[in-house]
Formats: sequence, C-alpha cells, structure tokens
Amino acid sequence: MALSNKVSVLVAGSWGTALASVLADNGKQVLLWSRNEEQVKEINAKHTNHRFLQDVELSPLIVATHSLQEAVVDADAIVMVVPSAGMRDVAAQIRPFLKKDALIIHATKGFETGTLKRMTEVLSDELPEHDPKRFVVLSGPSHAEEVIQKRPTTVVVAAEDLEAAEAAQDLMINAYFRVYTNPDVAGVEIGGALKNIIALGAGLTDGLGFGDNAKAALMTRGLAEIARLGATMGANPLTFAGLAGIGDLIATCTSQHSRNWRAGNKLAKGIALDEVLKEMGMVVEGVKTTKAAYELAQRYDVVMPITHELHNVLFEGKSPQLAAQDLMGRVRTHEIEEVAVETTTKVFK
Amino acid sequence: MALSNKVSVLVAGSWGTALASVLADNGKQVLLWSRNEEQVKEINAKHTNHRFLQDVELSPLIVATHSLQEAVVDADAIVMVVPSAGMRDVAAQIRPFLKKDALIIHATKGFETGTLKRMTEVLSDELPEHDPKRFVVLSGPSHAEEVIQKRPTTVVVAAEDLEAAEAAQDLMINAYFRVYTNPDVAGVEIGGALKNIIALGAGLTDGLGFGDNAKAALMTRGLAEIARLGATMGANPLTFAGLAGIGDLIATCTSQHSRNWRAGNKLAKGIALDEVLKEMGMVVEGVKTTKAAYELAQRYDVVMPITHELHNVLFEGKSPQLAAQDLMGRVRTHEIEEVAVETTTKVFK
Repeated sequence: MALSNKVSVLVAGSWGTALASVLADNGKQVLLWSRNEEQVKEINAKHTNHRFLQDVELSPLIVATHSLQEAVVDADAIVMVVPSAGMRDVAAQIRPFLKKDALIIHATKGFETGTLKRMTEVLSDELPEHDPKRFVVLSGPSHAEEVIQKRPTTVVVAAEDLEAAEAAQDLMINAYFRVYTNPDVAGVEIGGALKNIIALGAGLTDGLGFGDNAKAALMTRGLAEIARLGATMGANPLTFAGLAGIGDLIATCTSQHSRNWRAGNKLAKGIALDEVLKEMGMVVEGVKTTKAAYELAQRYDVVMPITHELHNVLFEGKSPQLAAQDLMGRVRTHEIEEVAVETTTKVFK
Repeated sequence: MALSNKVSVLVAGSWGTALASVLADNGKQVLLWSRNEEQVKEINAKHTNHRFLQDVELSPLIVATHSLQEAVVDADAIVMVVPSAGMRDVAAQIRPFLKKDALIIHATKGFETGTLKRMTEVLSDELPEHDPKRFVVLSGPSHAEEVIQKRPTTVVVAAEDLEAAEAAQDLMINAYFRVYTNPDVAGVEIGGALKNIIALGAGLTDGLGFGDNAKAALMTRGLAEIARLGATMGANPLTFAGLAGIGDLIATCTSQHSRNWRAGNKLAKGIALDEVLKEMGMVVEGVKTTKAAYELAQRYDVVMPITHELHNVLFEGKSPQLAAQDLMGRVRTHEIEEVAVETTTKVFK
C-alpha cells in the first residue's frame, strides 16, 4: 500500500502537535485540528503553539484548521490524540467524512469513564463501517517536550493486523523517532492508561519525601498490578515488560514533565483534588483512570493495592500519609505469587 | 530456630554500614569489620563513618573491629558486603572462625572476574564445609544514603531454602525496611549485578543530553537483555520483573546516588575510563560487570546489544556518541521476539 501523504492530527495539544511535527519531518502534509480559533491562527501565522509548547517553532508543513470536515475528508491517515473523555464524540463527528481505507492511529491513554472501554473499542462503536483492521494504537515512553526537540524516542504501534501496524510504522519512523510494531492492541492500550495511576502515586510518594528506594518499589509493584489486570483482560503479559509498559511507566514516573506526577505531588502537599485540577488547567488522565481501574479491578476480581489506596486518596478523602503507610505495611512475605503463570507470545498472524 | 543476636557485617562501606544500622535498629549487637584502623576508631569513638556517610550518627550498638576473627567467631549471622573482587579472599579468611550454622547473607552485586561466578558460587567454593542452604543473597532498590535515614525501602532475600530466607527476613525486617523472600538465588544475583551495566549506560545517555524518553527505552531494552541472559543461566524470568530486577534497575538508573550512573555520566563528557575511576575513588562494579556480562553473553550465546556497545566504549575506545547512535539505529521492527517463552514459577519446596 502506498504511503499516506495527507495526514490529519486531532487535536493540537502538546502530544498531538509533537506527533504532527514528526509527520512533517517525514515530509507529510499535516492538517492539525483545533476547536480554538485563536490557536489555529497562531499556528498558521506564527508557527508556534505557545499554550502547550512555548516558543518551539513548528514546520510550515503543519497547517491548522478548526474545521473537522476539512481536517479529515482527504486524509489517508488520521492521528487521534483526543482526551479519552472526548474520543467517542470526535469519532462520531468524523464518521461522515472519513475516507474508506483511512488508517486511524490513536495515541490517547485512558479508558472511557462509565463503560470502561478501551479507546479502540470506542472507535469501533462509533465507526461501525470502518474496517477494524485499520485501527492502530501508538504508545510508549514519549514526552512531547522531548519529541518536539527531536531527542531520541522509541514507541510502539499495535494493531490486530500487521499491514496496518507497518503502515503506521512507515508513516512515523525516522532517525529520532523509532517505531516498533506489536500485535497486542489490548496490552498496549491498558499499559498506557494504567501507568498514569502509578505516576500519580510516584508524585505522591515524592511529595511525601520518601526517596528513590520507595519510588522504585512503588513502580515495581505498580507494574505487577497493571500486568495482573491486563492479563486478566486478555493482554499479553510480555507487553507490560516492553516500551508501552515498563518503558512508559519509567518515563512518566521519573520525569517532572508528567502532569500525573505533578498532580500527585500537589496532593501530597495537602492540596485538595479540585484545587489541583484547577491549578493544572490541563487534563490529568490519571485521575479518571484511577476510578476506571478501581472499577475494572472489581469487575475482573483482581487485587490492585496501589490503585485501591490512590482511589481512597482521590475520592474518599484518605490522607496520602496514611495511604502510603498502609501500602508499606501490607503483609507480603514472598515476592513471587504461588500461582501458575501462563505466558503466551502473541505474534502477527 | 532462634533469632540471631550477634551479627557481623563485613565491610564498613556505605552499604555495609547502612545494613549494620538496620540490624542495630532491630536490637542486634553488630560487629562491623574494617581493614582501616582509623575508620574503626572513628566508628567506635564518634559513631560516624565520614568517608562513606558524612555526618550520619550511627547506633552505639554498632561496634567496629579490624580483627576478622573477632568479627566472625561468635556471629550467628554474617552479612557480607565485600566488593566482588574481594569476596573469595574474605570468604577464605573467615573459614577457620565460622560458626557451624551461621547464616551467611551477602549483599554484593557483581560476578567474579575471570571465573564469571556468582557470589554464592564463590562462597560455596571457599566454604566447602558450610551448609549451602545457609547462603542468602539480599538485593533490591536500596540506596544506602536513604536506608541510613530510615526512609522506606523494600528488598528481597533469596535462598534455596525457605528457612534460611525467612531467618534473614526476620533478622532484617522492620517498619522502614521491608524484606520479601524469593527462592531464585541465581535470578536475584544476576539482576543485581547486571543492572549496574544499564546504570552506566543511563549515566552515559544522560551525559549525552538524550533525555527521559531515550533513558526509558534504554532501561526497557536493558531489562530485556538482562532477563534473556538470566533465563539462559537458569534464573526465573519473573524475578527480573520484581524488586531485584526492574526495581533495582529503576532506583539505580534514575538516581544520582549511583556510582555507576556517575561513572557513565563522566564518560559521556569525554573523560577517559582510568581517569573516571581515579576521580570516583570508590569501586564502580558496573565496569567489571560489563566485561563479565560480555563474556557471559558469548559463553551462553545470548544477544546483548547494550552490553556490547558499553563494552566497546569502556574497553575498545569507541566514542559514547557513536555507540548510542548504533544502538538507536538497530534494525528491530517487532517489539516481542517471535519465540516461545516458557515461564515457570519457582516456589519454595
């Protein structure tokens, strides 16, 4: 299949704009959609997106539009970087304009509130005529602030179908942006969503002054509970040992770029959740994801102590100190649970 | 079995002194051995170990000695925190004085140069009369600087025998120092040793200014190659997903406490290896471990690209820039190798 040359990116947040830059660096014509007319004007006139990326100069190959129809109608590939709460709505809106074979790559990390669906499930719901083999998820350790500076970054694209995954890989890969394929769509989506919970927790333990030993333990046990839930939901456990699992977890938990880390850090200082979210002024996916994961853990009957304690802090008024203490004091004597672990390796059919 | 009350710790470096403090906090009488008479005097007179831990005040339950015989002869448990290069020699020296049932816990991360043996293998060689069931390894994400401040820390103790592992756990565990048991001695030793290589690499990429995305990718792929070698050497792959694997890797790679990270960072600035080691004035286990792992990879025919490139930088004069570039440019399209992975869960017999 010929490489896509017209690509649209929805929407012009920091990650969307960074991915638009990767595409422009690869010679694509990029239409970047935003609802905000001022932002559209700024991108087209000044080639900056100041609210999200300060004074970084964007490629002239990136053209902004506030018409969703214009963005989508000629696009061979659409990169969806919509917050999880808006994915269903935007998918429904693009449905009438979508090219039949358009590749749909999403890079959104979260579940839909209420339904607890993964983003490709939401896309399938709203785009029932579209071949589900054309859905791809992109994830991995990738701070937008570094990608836009062309600093070396590696990501994973996952699709049920090798051809679609490789089409996404061909579209995005370049010298500073390495793209690997993986057939485990569920695992890549679950890893990307759930790591935000652990990032909140890492911000919280850092805010409490616990240190690097405690944070490393939190991340290790956090990965274990992510993998436990993921495997129960049908993901390949090995995906969580890869870029979309531990890789993304490390990048998010150890960097002050992360909104989730910053939100957790503020909570530890005794600032209330409402106030934290107001101060940040950006979507903090980890907050909604904690609620979703808490509900998924109940639905699938999986033990998730870190998620449980963070849920208590965010939504039940428990003090971060007490939650941390309760986590630390848990009775666990043997590190490896005495259960048979069945590990299957999914490969492309 | 009754808890050990007389414990000796060999030697009085930063980690040895921190473990001595944990034991003293648990009410043990601790004899801390050092070859350095000045250091022995300082610890006994001033209760500090300034060279390694600045002005931290040590418990009066810690008594230093420069007599190895005195340190060992009455000890119910011996904690060996000897650099890997000295383990064989110290083990041979304590052989005549050792109590028959003494628990021997080592916390040394590295292989023996030349033989490429793990530390419990070296101990078995030099203490042939001692019941090998009494050998325990302690590892995990644990910067000495934080443990000595009683900041929350979790570690793993591994032994072939559950009773020995639990005896070590009982000896060490307290409110700020959580100890889990694991039956996979080889995995815990291999994870602890090999993470130092990746820490060197992380210091190097940080020194080159690559950023958090690249470091997370390095750590993810580093863990994969550690697990690949470890599994070939008989370890349980799950151990590398635990505290002694990814946990320790995270703590070491993301902290400037780490000597290995600091050494890599200096190398990236163009300082030669000899000069780096002279400047640091402390043992940098990762340098020797890179050589050992390089040889192990050849012996077991395991692909270890990160180890290989670091070996080239350390011992073949390759520039860090070029090594990083070669790693980044590797042709790898699919993230999960198409091999059957057999995961067994070792549990205590």
